Amino acid sequence: MDVLPPNITRLIDEFSKLPSIGPKSAERLTFFLLKHGDIQAFSEAVAHLKDNIRRCDQCRNFTVNQTCPICSSSNRTTDQLAIVSQPLDIIAIEKTGQYNGIYHVLHGVISPVDGMGPENLEVESLMLRLGKKPPREVILALNPNIEGETTALYLAKKITPLGIRMTRLAHGLPMGGDLEYADQLTLTRALSNRQEV
Amino acid sequence: MDVLPPNITRLIDEFSKLPSIGPKSAERLTFFLLKHGDIQAFSEAVAHLKDNIRRCDQCRNFTVNQTCPICSSSNRTTDQLAIVSQPLDIIAIEKTGQYNGIYHVLHGVISPVDGMGPENLEVESLMLRLGKKPPREVILALNPNIEGETTALYLAKKITPLGIRMTRLAHGLPMGGDLEYADQLTLTRALSNRQEV
Repeated sequence: MDVLPPNITRLIDEFSKLPSIGPKSAERLTFFLLKHGDIQAFSEAVAHLKDNIRRCDQCRNFTVNQTCPICSSSNRTTDQLAIVSQPLDIIAIEKTGQYNGIYHVLHGVISPVDGMGPENLEVESLMLRLGKKPPREVILALNPNIEGETTALYLAKKITPLGIRMTRLAHGLPMGGDLEYADQLTLTRALSNRQEV
Repeated sequence: MDVLPPNITRLIDEFSKLPSIGPKSAERLTFFLLKHGDIQAFSEAVAHLKDNIRRCDQCRNFTVNQTCPICSSSNRTTDQLAIVSQPLDIIAIEKTGQYNGIYHVLHGVISPVDGMGPENLEVESLMLRLGKKPPREVILALNPNIEGETTALYLAKKITPLGIRMTRLAHGLPMGGDLEYADQLTLTRALSNRQEV
């Protein structure tokens, strides 16, 4: 028996399609909106999500102007260019407050299983950009997993001929982490990348 | 610097208002919708959530008709009436497949901290219903926490004069749970409610 009205099950279904939201969470979120939520504000925020959104001419990050705030800022150095897989990674790096260079967003990583090859990524725009105005250093800021490593390897091969210095984010024990709980691979990297005290 | 376009931060903000969704989850959900989501389907599901939604004349559960499917079903016995705090609890009980009675939804629990008293709950409609057509048994199916117990106690006082049999859900160790991880209160209840083998 359908205990719930179709309008309610419909939104539960939509919530369930989102990542990391199971059927129980979807139910709870729907009933929260029903009781306490500003339904109009929420539905409009969803409806207008893509309005005027485009990719920055330079770094391919999402933006509303031709060039994004970072690329058009005069306070950022173009000496360093960090390659990230998605816009969220830029937010994470910006939060450190330790980076003042520019970015390039690939919008994905090489993943044959998901049918993602270099042609589906912002690689061509990256190579054009590096050819036109090469930075002094390219930082490969990709995730430390198989897809990230594959993508880094692929990009390294493409960028090496340009003679630009290439670095990548350090791998090792996460801060605040417990050595005894570190996985084998992380500990192996932490050992082989050990630093002088 | 605002790294993200306002449309994107707006939806991140809306997602963050939902329970158990932190800022990181809100970001991930927003970017998932941006890349893979059916934005129209989702925004419409939200916008139409409350369309034609009303409370069942009988049990006060959300429904689109005057009477909800359970109350209008001829297959349900009116001998048993389970009092629940919210519609989600009905879904949970229905999933057990072990209950064939009817329900009454309070739409909340007594919680002075949140300014919720009996007058904010579907208590009046409950008492009217019990007076008009008393079931043989009322099952208090409320959460085993302070608010649930308070509400159960309040209702028990109101219902006792009607001479209807009153029961409540059993408290004890959850199935599949580990005795050593059970909290003190649960174990105390499990001990005092122990059953003959």
